[in-house]
Amino acid sequence: MSFSTYLKGNALVGQSGGPTSAINATLSGVVKGALECKYIDKIYGARNGINGVIEENLIDIGQILNTEEKLFMLECTPAAALGSCRKKLVDLSSTEDKHGDYKKIFEIFKKYNIRYFFYIGGNDSMDTVDKLSKYAQKIDYEIKLMGVPKTIDNDLVCTDHTPGFGSAAKFIATTMQEIARDCSIYNLKAVTIVEIMGRDAGWLTAAAGLPRLYGSDTADFIYLPEEIFDYDLFIEDIKKLLLKKPNIVVAVSEGIKDKEGRYVGEGSQSGAVDTFGHKYLAGTAKVLERLVQDKIGCKVRSIELSLPQRCAGHCISKCDIEESVFIGKKSVEKALEIEKNSGFITVFIRADGTEYNVSIDAVPINEVANKIKIVPENYINIEKNNVTEELLKYIAPLIKGEITIPMVNGLPKHFIF
Amino acid sequence: MSFSTYLKGNALVGQSGGPTSAINATLSGVVKGALECKYIDKIYGARNGINGVIEENLIDIGQILNTEEKLFMLECTPAAALGSCRKKLVDLSSTEDKHGDYKKIFEIFKKYNIRYFFYIGGNDSMDTVDKLSKYAQKIDYEIKLMGVPKTIDNDLVCTDHTPGFGSAAKFIATTMQEIARDCSIYNLKAVTIVEIMGRDAGWLTAAAGLPRLYGSDTADFIYLPEEIFDYDLFIEDIKKLLLKKPNIVVAVSEGIKDKEGRYVGEGSQSGAVDTFGHKYLAGTAKVLERLVQDKIGCKVRSIELSLPQRCAGHCISKCDIEESVFIGKKSVEKALEIEKNSGFITVFIRADGTEYNVSIDAVPINEVANKIKIVPENYINIEKNNVTEELLKYIAPLIKGEITIPMVNGLPKHFIF
Repeated sequence: MSFSTYLKGNALVGQSGGPTSAINATLSGVVKGALECKYIDKIYGARNGINGVIEENLIDIGQILNTEEKLFMLECTPAAALGSCRKKLVDLSSTEDKHGDYKKIFEIFKKYNIRYFFYIGGNDSMDTVDKLSKYAQKIDYEIKLMGVPKTIDNDLVCTDHTPGFGSAAKFIATTMQEIARDCSIYNLKAVTIVEIMGRDAGWLTAAAGLPRLYGSDTADFIYLPEEIFDYDLFIEDIKKLLLKKPNIVVAVSEGIKDKEGRYVGEGSQSGAVDTFGHKYLAGTAKVLERLVQDKIGCKVRSIELSLPQRCAGHCISKCDIEESVFIGKKSVEKALEIEKNSGFITVFIRADGTEYNVSIDAVPINEVANKIKIVPENYINIEKNNVTEELLKYIAPLIKGEITIPMVNGLPKHFIF
Repeated sequence: MSFSTYLKGNALVGQSGGPTSAINATLSGVVKGALECKYIDKIYGARNGINGVIEENLIDIGQILNTEEKLFMLECTPAAALGSCRKKLVDLSSTEDKHGDYKKIFEIFKKYNIRYFFYIGGNDSMDTVDKLSKYAQKIDYEIKLMGVPKTIDNDLVCTDHTPGFGSAAKFIATTMQEIARDCSIYNLKAVTIVEIMGRDAGWLTAAAGLPRLYGSDTADFIYLPEEIFDYDLFIEDIKKLLLKKPNIVVAVSEGIKDKEGRYVGEGSQSGAVDTFGHKYLAGTAKVLERLVQDKIGCKVRSIELSLPQRCAGHCISKCDIEESVFIGKKSVEKALEIEKNSGFITVFIRADGTEYNVSIDAVPINEVANKIKIVPENYINIEKNNVTEELLKYIAPLIKGEITIPMVNGLPKHFIF
């Protein structure tokens, strides 16, 4: 990466994809970085991601976020404060661009003299940055396009982990520890199956194991989507453990599939797909609840942790929030350095050694877009029903630290634009 | 209530019924009160409620909880630390007492010289205290029997509110505010239906409205079990509001019933009942999700807040925890005053006036046992699709205040006996 000409002009930031509890911390970081940057005059925010650009729905967020207090409140507010979208731009080679989205976007870029574009998002959002960089090259519009990662799923390649994952992992580990506590109070045989987000990658479900690292009760079994889910082995696992202890807690990823490649949760699903062609999933734990009821017959209960995994702003990780601000701020610095009209994404690099430490780098976005980082085999135990201590040690630093979030009348105080 | 002869001897405390995030704070209060009381020598704890007495599974908790630090850690630990049970003693008039439970219980009382018995529990648990007091009278065993309330449901009569309700309400209000935030980020028509605990009483579901009191987004509609649920009016409510805003959040109690008295959630249920003859419910939100999908056809999602409502120890209310310790401690004082062989329960009395303030009283347990306090009609709006500001103001003080709970490595540190 060579130092490019520093462009002078305005910056625009947008948020895209599913919410996280840290996506606004990153927004705050980008704003802080832009306000400090002598090459950037104004920092605008696009409402509802790229749709806000197309519809010229921009706000002068540099002016709005004019106190430390507002920035901190924003950092502690879950879910995209600017609004989000799940829009997928058509391929540049396609003749389908009948809405002329690219044309509109770059008209707005010109109108507002946008020379820095920051897009905070996950895998699907990086696809947008990648395509915009190609279009910028095509029409030779001078702009620095920077993807800034966020996803609770932790499934982006080229980065040690993703902003937002730590807080989601903290909520999951905390809640699993509490559920294990709750389930332990009766002396009756009972199985509790908890469904955790993660369509393709099991990082979030793995976080259910964290309390074990410190000797606390949590899920007895953890099933990730990286391994084929075997119904018979699952029932065997439970039957065996029920001989030793009355209360069993199981964590399963929503995305577990059987040997035919069918989602376990598909039984109760319509097969509907979202804009990106992903199947909607729900009911994995419910399907397994019925199976246990049928095959074992003891008390059984299923729980979906659902949306709070991505928006429980009251249970954020200090490490995650601070790093999310950090990567947002650093993304502005990195944007100065990258070649114009190219698309890059900032990533975390974890330092070797026992002390946890990260630095920020930027990599070409096409190395990241549309790829998925799954949990490697050596992080899963031999019986394929739990994760290794090594995996837990990898996640452990990401959930550490408490932030005293702004509270009023016993409720978190959110920042709303 | 006249001052009775002060009995000298040992005390025994047990926990019963479903978990709450504050039930251990009450246990801590009872222990503190007993340790300070000159009439009480030792304070034992019964494992798994009354079953621990029958099985002589007692521990010397006064000795175990010998530091302020341990007591505080216990206060911040959710779910009954001594274990719980859902045992219902047979009626005294019944000839069914083939296990001789009463005989065994009072043999243990005699063996350990138990003269004070504290039972921390909800409605069903108070039935146990009531029956034990009648048996004590029958065999003329001198003992003070004191029920100490706990239930997230807030459905006990004779008390302003119940310990445990405030923390559950805080978790629900916090989570609803976060879910509303999460749902607001897309500009697509979408309905999110959140199912909240409460079989007969809508207090917990009402707590979903709290953020509204402070101008924050939360559930747009709230349906309580106190009112007949009308499927057509529900669909009309949503259709009308969808004309004004794209994202709608609905809070429903698990216990809502149609005009025939059928639980809405029954559709997906087996009709199984628990020991106390209550039907197991789940799937109320799921049933309504399908209804909205069918009748309106927009994006719709259902969420069950599930177990975390009663065990989210990471989101406790300072008011609730402090009051729970207070009522535990005061229960020991009150036990000194009540007639021997009688059964009493401690209750909260809210002072009149604008400043929130409670004191503790004790009332005969038969005035409380097996009765349910539902949300009165004047707390529900005319359209029967929300709660009044008056109701929110009643709940508001109970969720206030933050406790810095003991955290290690980013996770709450629980106390385990």
